[in-house]
Formats: sequence, structure tokens, C-alpha cells
Amino acid sequence: MPRSWVPDGDADFPLANLPYGAIVRAGDPIPHLAVAIGDFALDLHALARAGIFDDALLDARALLCGPTLDALLACGRPTWSAVRAAIGAYLHVDDGVGNARVRDGELAARALVPRGAFRNVRPFTVATYVDFFASLEHATNLGRILRPGEEPLAPNWRHLPVGYHGRASTLSWDDTVRRPRGIVAGLDGGPIFVPTRKLDYELELACVTGDAPAALDPDRARASIFGFMLLNDWSARDIQAFEYRPLGPFLGKSFATSLSPWIVPFDALESYRCAAPEQSPQPLAHLRETGDGAYDIDLEVAIASAAMRARGDAEHVVARTNARGLYWTMGQQLAHVTSNGTRVRAGDVYATGTISGVASEASGSLIERTWDGARPLALSDGTTRTYLEDGDHVVMRAVASRDGRARIGFGALRTTVARATAES
Amino acid sequence: MPRSWVPDGDADFPLANLPYGAIVRAGDPIPHLAVAIGDFALDLHALARAGIFDDALLDARALLCGPTLDALLACGRPTWSAVRAAIGAYLHVDDGVGNARVRDGELAARALVPRGAFRNVRPFTVATYVDFFASLEHATNLGRILRPGEEPLAPNWRHLPVGYHGRASTLSWDDTVRRPRGIVAGLDGGPIFVPTRKLDYELELACVTGDAPAALDPDRARASIFGFMLLNDWSARDIQAFEYRPLGPFLGKSFATSLSPWIVPFDALESYRCAAPEQSPQPLAHLRETGDGAYDIDLEVAIASAAMRARGDAEHVVARTNARGLYWTMGQQLAHVTSNGTRVRAGDVYATGTISGVASEASGSLIERTWDGARPLALSDGTTRTYLEDGDHVVMRAVASRDGRARIGFGALRTTVARATAES
Repeated sequence: MPRSWVPDGDADFPLANLPYGAIVRAGDPIPHLAVAIGDFALDLHALARAGIFDDALLDARALLCGPTLDALLACGRPTWSAVRAAIGAYLHVDDGVGNARVRDGELAARALVPRGAFRNVRPFTVATYVDFFASLEHATNLGRILRPGEEPLAPNWRHLPVGYHGRASTLSWDDTVRRPRGIVAGLDGGPIFVPTRKLDYELELACVTGDAPAALDPDRARASIFGFMLLNDWSARDIQAFEYRPLGPFLGKSFATSLSPWIVPFDALESYRCAAPEQSPQPLAHLRETGDGAYDIDLEVAIASAAMRARGDAEHVVARTNARGLYWTMGQQLAHVTSNGTRVRAGDVYATGTISGVASEASGSLIERTWDGARPLALSDGTTRTYLEDGDHVVMRAVASRDGRARIGFGALRTTVARATAES
Repeated sequence: MPRSWVPDGDADFPLANLPYGAIVRAGDPIPHLAVAIGDFALDLHALARAGIFDDALLDARALLCGPTLDALLACGRPTWSAVRAAIGAYLHVDDGVGNARVRDGELAARALVPRGAFRNVRPFTVATYVDFFASLEHATNLGRILRPGEEPLAPNWRHLPVGYHGRASTLSWDDTVRRPRGIVAGLDGGPIFVPTRKLDYELELACVTGDAPAALDPDRARASIFGFMLLNDWSARDIQAFEYRPLGPFLGKSFATSLSPWIVPFDALESYRCAAPEQSPQPLAHLRETGDGAYDIDLEVAIASAAMRARGDAEHVVARTNARGLYWTMGQQLAHVTSNGTRVRAGDVYATGTISGVASEASGSLIERTWDGARPLALSDGTTRTYLEDGDHVVMRAVASRDGRARIGFGALRTTVARATAES
């Protein structure tokens, strides 16, 4: 397996990964683009400005010296591959060119930022945000809970990837999520306006795309993906239940959606592609995928209450699942989006929807894990949860690993629940 | 009533209106900001660059010489009022300062662009797009048609303004709309992928906002509105019917949403505000409006088939309605959006949803006007319509008029239906 001259560190971020992010370094307010490598962020701005990528990339300074990935996202796959190759060459221990460049030890030391000396900030400008509903187990669970006595899956569910547009402006890389207020059903069924009593997470994967034409087939559609992130689709279940008929989720979701700070490149995950579950009935021709469309990625959610954190207790893992079980693939979802003439654009974010498995322990949301509160979940601090409480720290993780291949991790997506604002 | 030195012309665009747009003039590819006045577009770029607004506005060149209204939208109401006052002063026949400036007849002639010598282009960058469902008559009709045998209004409808996020990237100022393909129910109920057979329009009003804080009451929320447009929420009813459960409309709407090119300023419509219908039950405190929240605006939709246009026949008006009957007001809708901590931002577009009245002739969509095709509509060319056919030209108009007050019009929103692309 190729190795880097950067010392081994965080197992999520080997040379085979090189996820992109934007960082702010101590003493400098301007965001720099970076990749994660081991326990460091490699400052791409510093390297590009010093001319390190000049002979490998036509526009290295234009693409890598801005505060976001926006310029790179607009370039498309050939440029994405060239940039990734150039960064890999710089970091690769066996690469002559890379080594020659690294001989400038002062530059390398300046570009390699240790953990604690930077913080991650928003890495790109979100254009459109769409959330899908790709997990058969999640869709079935939600149907049973929200519409008891009815058929849990709508008749359309196996024929197309059901999805909806979310609020792009509240996609967030913040450390905290504020408990929202909203209209919910009171004890007599009448509406009351209160802080949500059913604040939930949803464990999802999301991709960010470049520009792509309309009417793509799933295999070509997948190629428009720049990279992948963890996504936490915060959901206020009581607000959502009251509002969602007939036009779908709105304020129960729009207050915040969290994304993980490092974007795992499409190319890094290619060797973790695998066959998606067999679809029955077979989808219509424009949604049929010939290649392997699923990704073998283990995911987990953990909670650390304020009390647990105060005592230094470990986070309590409350669910483990895998993305390969998703019924609809990302390629099929993007093909569906473009099938009516709509284009996928640079900066668009498309998410899988909650990733749940068959077992309760594989539920990607608390509404499923506790069956809307009917089966409270015991945490390691002796308390129980039906839904999230103020001060709860939610941690999501995702890792692709297989025998003989590098482990590729997403890093952690960490968010703490802040109490609702005082009534105005 | 104040008068302008520009000759009287199009009755929609008197001095009291001055709607904003972006135009491209013959021989110059760069868009210029403009206001409509009579039969002319007044080129704001030309005037601002010549220094006409320099002593009235701090940043006239920065605000008015870009290709879009984005910089102005970000400024907020005090600047919006100052810009409107400065443009009004330039155009006002009785204003000494204005007259003195207009003495530069060569500049005035250069800035005044006659119809035919310009075309309108996209006037601002759309941030978020939300569509509401504010008409009681429309919501009831759609419930009866799409969910026969069920209560037409969901229990939430009278307690909050139901709405959803649409696709901001396909808001369009194009002349044509392409008939989309999509998955619809075939004869046996199974899915088929075909060009929609139920292409419909929806007659709506929309506003574009500036930046505003969260947790606004309806009266303050309304003040974040920069101006109003006509909006045609194109809908493929067969695609929509198949896909919308449980997450709401998606590809049945996302292919295109048309906006009228001239943005009627908030201030121009202030004297047409009127009392909204009484709400029963009274909404919760944060959605209660103290001022008049409705607008007395007459609206109509007309169709001209390709045959009618070839013969030079007049457009056939198929529906007339008024916006004052909308159950939920724009202020209440914006207050609702911000009630969960979300902010309204510059460039956001919020639409009313289809504006329908009680009578069939007051229906803002064909699904209502023809009751999903059960009552075909006779056009003046002897043909009938259940839904739109290729080549149909759809024209929407809106006018505010009252005794003793200037008539304020929106201009026409015109779009022609283009046939679906050949199957790929």
C-alpha cells in the first residue's frame, strides 16, 4: 500500500483518502483549502502559492488559493483527478518528484498543520439540496410509525427514488444545533407553538457534485460526484408530523442540516463500490444501473450526554449500520433528478436519507431506535433517551474497510444540541 | 397624480410603479439594470455611470451598475427607498432637481430604451425558493381531485401556512418551457416513463426578499420584501400524482418555474394592501397579523394556441381571480418560515401557491378549471383543452387598481410550451 512521508496518525485519513476541506489556521482569518492526512491538515493554499503544483496543474493557484472548493467543483472530473494526483505525488514517499519538492522542508513544515492548530469551516457554497428516502427499512419504519394501519410504503416507492428539496441555506458546518420551536399537536390535538419535544438525528451520506447535463443514466450520473460527506438531517418529529401533509417536510427539517467537514473524494471510494440489493420490480430503463452502484461503508451514531462528557465517559454508540443495503443508489437518484430535463450543478448536495438496517440496533434515527419513544434507550450514564436532550453531543462516523485495502474514514461529524432560545 | 416627462404608454408602468428588471440592449451583451416606465425601459446603469444619482445615493454606481439586483437586495429597506426616490425624482416632471438633470437630453435619450430595443434577462440570483399553498379554494380543490373520498384539507391547513422548498436552480425567465418526461401511472397502474400528458400552469404571486433576522412577526416579516412578481409554477400533474407521497412534489414541479421579468416594488403596492379574509380558528400568536396583510390585485391567465397565434387571434382569457382572497398572507408565510430559527435571505423567493377563487372561472390552474380533464375547456379557436398542448402560449397578468389611485401592473408573464425532447 502506498505510504506518505507524513507520520501515520488518524486511521481515517491515510494517503489513499485525502479528503478535502477548508480550514482556518491560528492567527489567519482567511480560510485555506486543505486535505486531511493522518493527524494533520495539509494546507493546499500554501503549497499552490509556493508553486508546488505549477507543472502538474494548469490553474493550480486559481483552483486552490480561494477560500472554498467552488472553483474546483466547477471543473469536472479530469481536473479533479489531476488535482488529486498532484497532491498524492507531493505526499507520496516513493515518488521522486514529490520527494524533490519536499526537500523544501520549511515549506512542508508550514503547510502541515497539526490538529489543534486549525479549525474546519464551510468548504463550498451549497447550490441545491435534495434529500432522498433510499433505505427500504427506514421508509418502512417511518410509514409504520407515522401512518399506523396504512400500507407503510407508498405505491411509488419501489418505482422511483422518492426525494424532496430541502433548505440549502441551512446546511451547516457548525458545532451546535439549536433546538427549534414550532407548531405541534397539543394534548387535545390542537396546535401549540413550543420548543420541539422530539428532536432527532438522521444518519445519512451525502454527495456534492460538479456540473452535469440532463438525462443522465445512473452510471454516468454517478461520475458527476466530486465527493462524499456524512450528513445529519436534524428532524423535529412533532413539528414534522403536524406539518407534512400533503406537501412534505418543511420547518421540521429546515432549521439545520449538518455536514461533516472533510469531503471524501469519489476516487478514494471507488474500490469500495459493491452490488446494490436486487430491486424488485426491476426499475424502468432510465433508472437501470449496469455497474455496482452501492458503497460498502460502515456507519455509526453515538451519543454523549453533558453528564457523560463532564465525567470523561466514552460516547455511547447507539446504532451501527452499513450503506450497502440502501435500495436506491446515488447514481439512480441523480439519474432520476435529471430525467425531467433538470441539470445537476456544481455545489449541489444530494443525500441518501436515513440509513437503517433490519435490526433496531441498525436504526439511523431515534424515532426508529426508540419506536417514537415507546422503547426508551439506556445510555451508559444511567439515563434513558426517547429523543435528544439539551447538551447531548451526537457523533456520526463512517468507514470503508476491506481486507487488503486501505481503510478510508470520513472523520467524525460532531454536533451538540443547544437549548431553545428564550421566548421573544 | 404625479406625472413623468416620459410619454404615457403601457398602463401597467406609470411613475407610481417603476418595477425593476435587467435588460440586454441591442448591440451590448452585458445586462443593465432598468425600471419600466410607460413603453420604455430606463437604463439605470447608464444614468448611474453618468453620476445622475451620486448626490442622492451613497453607492449608486456599486448598486446599479452590476448585471443584477443582488447588491441592492442585500442592502435593506432604507436603501431600497432611497434608490426608488432617486429614480422617481429623475423621472418626475415637477421635480426641479429631476428637471435640471434631464436637461442633459442626450443622456436621457440614451437611457430611455424603447420596447423592441431590449430584452429582459434574469434580474437577480435566486437563493432559496419556497412555494406555499395559501388559497383555501385551491387547497380544497386539489384535495378533492387528488384524494377523492378523503377530507380535502389536511388538519394542519388552517393552523399554519403549508409550504415546501422548490428547486431554486430552475426558476426561469425563459420564453419557453420544455414538456418534461417523467414516471407516471400507465393504463394498468404500473409505471411508465413518458412525456407528461398533464402539463399545467399555476397562477401565483411571488416576492423576493432582502436579508431578515429569524423569529419575525408577520408585520415585520412583510417589511423584508423587496418586491413582487408573477410566478407560473409549471406542474406535470401525472408525474406529481405518482411521486408526491409522502415527501411532497419533486420532479412534477422541478423542471421549470417561470417568473415575470419586472419586479414591482413593495412600496408601489402599499396603497393596495387590504384586510385578509377572517381566519377561523385564529392563528397562534406568532402568526397573528395586526395590519392589513392582503393585496388587492386582479389576476388573469390566458391561452393562445399555435393556431390562434398564426391567425392573429386574441389570447383567450381562461381564468380571472384576485389575490385578496388568499387565506394566508405573505407576512404570515415569512413569519412561519422564520419561526424555527431560519432566516430569510437576500434573493429568496416565496410564492403564494395557486390563486383560485370559488367559481370555476376563477381557477388558477387547469386541473381545477377542467376538473382534471373531466370538463374540457373550449378555446376561441374551436379546440378544447384538458391540459396544455405543445405550442400553447400561456400569458399571466396582474393589476392593482382602485378609484383615485394609479393603476399598477406587473406586465405580462408569457411562456410557450415546447415539445418534449426526442427520446435519447
